[in-house]
Amino acid sequence: MSIVSLTTDFGTTDPYVGMMKAVILTYDPSCVLVDLTHGISPQDINAAQFFLSHAWTFFPKKTIHLVVVDPGVGTSRSRIVATQDSHWFVGPDNGVFSFLDMERAKIWRVPSLEDIPKKSVTFEGRDVFSHIVGKLIQGLPVGDFGIPVNQIGLSKLPSVQSQDGVVKGSVLFFDHFGNVITNIPGEVLKNFTKPKILISEYSIESIESTYEHHRGAIAIINSYNLLEIAVPKGSAKDRLKVAPGAEVVVKES
Amino acid sequence: MSIVSLTTDFGTTDPYVGMMKAVILTYDPSCVLVDLTHGISPQDINAAQFFLSHAWTFFPKKTIHLVVVDPGVGTSRSRIVATQDSHWFVGPDNGVFSFLDMERAKIWRVPSLEDIPKKSVTFEGRDVFSHIVGKLIQGLPVGDFGIPVNQIGLSKLPSVQSQDGVVKGSVLFFDHFGNVITNIPGEVLKNFTKPKILISEYSIESIESTYEHHRGAIAIINSYNLLEIAVPKGSAKDRLKVAPGAEVVVKES
Amino acid sequence: MSIVSLTTDFGTTDPYVGMMKAVILTYDPSCVLVDLTHGISPQDINAAQFFLSHAWTFFPKKTIHLVVVDPGVGTSRSRIVATQDSHWFVGPDNGVFSFLDMERAKIWRVPSLEDIPKKSVTFEGRDVFSHIVGKLIQGLPVGDFGIPVNQIGLSKLPSVQSQDGVVKGSVLFFDHFGNVITNIPGEVLKNFTKPKILISEYSIESIESTYEHHRGAIAIINSYNLLEIAVPKGSAKDRLKVAPGAEVVVKES
Repeated sequence: MSIVSLTTDFGTTDPYVGMMKAVILTYDPSCVLVDLTHGISPQDINAAQFFLSHAWTFFPKKTIHLVVVDPGVGTSRSRIVATQDSHWFVGPDNGVFSFLDMERAKIWRVPSLEDIPKKSVTFEGRDVFSHIVGKLIQGLPVGDFGIPVNQIGLSKLPSVQSQDGVVKGSVLFFDHFGNVITNIPGEVLKNFTKPKILISEYSIESIESTYEHHRGAIAIINSYNLLEIAVPKGSAKDRLKVAPGAEVVVKES
Repeated sequence: MSIVSLTTDFGTTDPYVGMMKAVILTYDPSCVLVDLTHGISPQDINAAQFFLSHAWTFFPKKTIHLVVVDPGVGTSRSRIVATQDSHWFVGPDNGVFSFLDMERAKIWRVPSLEDIPKKSVTFEGRDVFSHIVGKLIQGLPVGDFGIPVNQIGLSKLPSVQSQDGVVKGSVLFFDHFGNVITNIPGEVLKNFTKPKILISEYSIESIESTYEHHRGAIAIINSYNLLEIAVPKGSAKDRLKVAPGAEVVVKES
Repeated sequence: MSIVSLTTDFGTTDPYVGMMKAVILTYDPSCVLVDLTHGISPQDINAAQFFLSHAWTFFPKKTIHLVVVDPGVGTSRSRIVATQDSHWFVGPDNGVFSFLDMERAKIWRVPSLEDIPKKSVTFEGRDVFSHIVGKLIQGLPVGDFGIPVNQIGLSKLPSVQSQDGVVKGSVLFFDHFGNVITNIPGEVLKNFTKPKILISEYSIESIESTYEHHRGAIAIINSYNLLEIAVPKGSAKDRLKVAPGAEVVVKES
């Protein structure tokens, strides 16, 4: 029983995702296809990397994680297959798998596949990557179509700075509830006796453990284990009027 | 072959739903996961209740219906497992299962599960509820982790009033086509010889049986078996300019 | 192992699609349900036809393609079952299957099914079509409930005109990336030595083979094998300010 997770920036209005699933099912009609998200902003490699980095370990071992966020489609950018901790990864070599541990992962570069008829230059998700997934499902050794490599393209999320007891991070994105997701790890807050969070014109003085029973903007350690600013029963995104990249500061009160 | 239906307010842009499915698949990779909807407005318990109440009987028996619309996540609100007519229900005890028949349903309250590592306080859908579903799929008796109870939290949809031959209900919501869904049961209309429907500034005098061949606002008994106002080839929502909660009156012409 | 593809204009906020899947699963809980799209604009028969015509051949043989874009629901419009090249098609007889080859397809008209209780007049997707799919999955011969016919309703996409070395087509729609999809086949461009494309106030002089390394509006043969206008890292839809139906001209430079 093979499981394939799919992460793309294709949206769900066009039939692109359905076509990819169709191709994969021709290799194994019993495989389980799980949408991680198709709502990545067009060509946002960092978002794809972020979402999959937090999600892949929840899947059963042997899951194949297919990512098609591919601004370089049709160019000479590489395609890669990787494996780590008994999970598999397939996608363009553009940074979407930056979270892999180069000490433990095995990586192959996949050149053009001669046995796959070239159908288009603009949709390798359907015309190449889904076929690679199919070959893996069928148990074909990667060495038969891939070339071992030691490096992959990297894409960097903004980093967190710490100096003189002040931590500076930034807003990564907003989730569906309008929660403001920052890049500051939850552990950082444990270094403060009474942390104060500065974001936009707001100063937030306490870390809550639930969304309920609060008014206004609160800070919480979310399910990504990151500092999040939320407005219970409202939208922190609308309230704080910040943009991705905006500075978030944590200091002692 | 287990079937799990999923109803949440998570949207499909974030990877939240995919993570829940991942956890469930670790218990049984062959289980069938069916999205009922992830488009419930944030924390709209009534909408979740309404949708599932109309949908669950269409699923095969033994289906497990997982609902995660959970404004109280992380608080002391209960979690429940229920069964009725050979279907199963898992979710927070906040009214999302108000449609169950207390005479026929069996209900258990589920305290913290000691064998499940606590991963977050903000995402019990992934970190608790999906594990409960997994335990049910594996055939674990609910009595092993749940405590029988006789009551569940209730959430009430607005009610319909009838007096002196006049029925007063209200607008529940709009569907994807802009149809205005009311809470007035289709049967009510049979009590009138020539019903007239008053909504906003509109007076609608006939009940149609199809959408086609009509212009302007019509009334129809929809697939929820509720009175609906539609504008064929248009949007009743846009035309009538009403909001959820607006009054809808049915009287004799 | 049965595969069913689903194409509707239902969106994914209402529970309509989930209800259809529920009914199909009552016939065979092991069948594989693949969403092609539920984002067809309400009642846009041409879009449904276009998407499925380009997608169906990618699915495994024996796949059942269910289309419910059905403005005539509840009227006397026919329902049809068709088969071609070992694929199956189920939907209203309103043009959604115009791409079938009448020389090779077998078609049946399906009257009201006596063994299916009438639940609603507005949702045949759940109350009739899903049951027809279920009967096919169970292997019931179509002749048992359908009447052979020789014709189906046709829906025509706008055609392409060619005269005196000038090709005139039109904009079909925009995809998720804002790419402008035209109805001009890729092959047409091979008839020109140095094609020039006129659309809105733009004149585009070269056909590119990738999206990358370009600025401004470019022309490309897309994965539908149609002429597409794209703005790499941007939206051609926003840049060109054209609407579906707008003229697109190809001539020699």
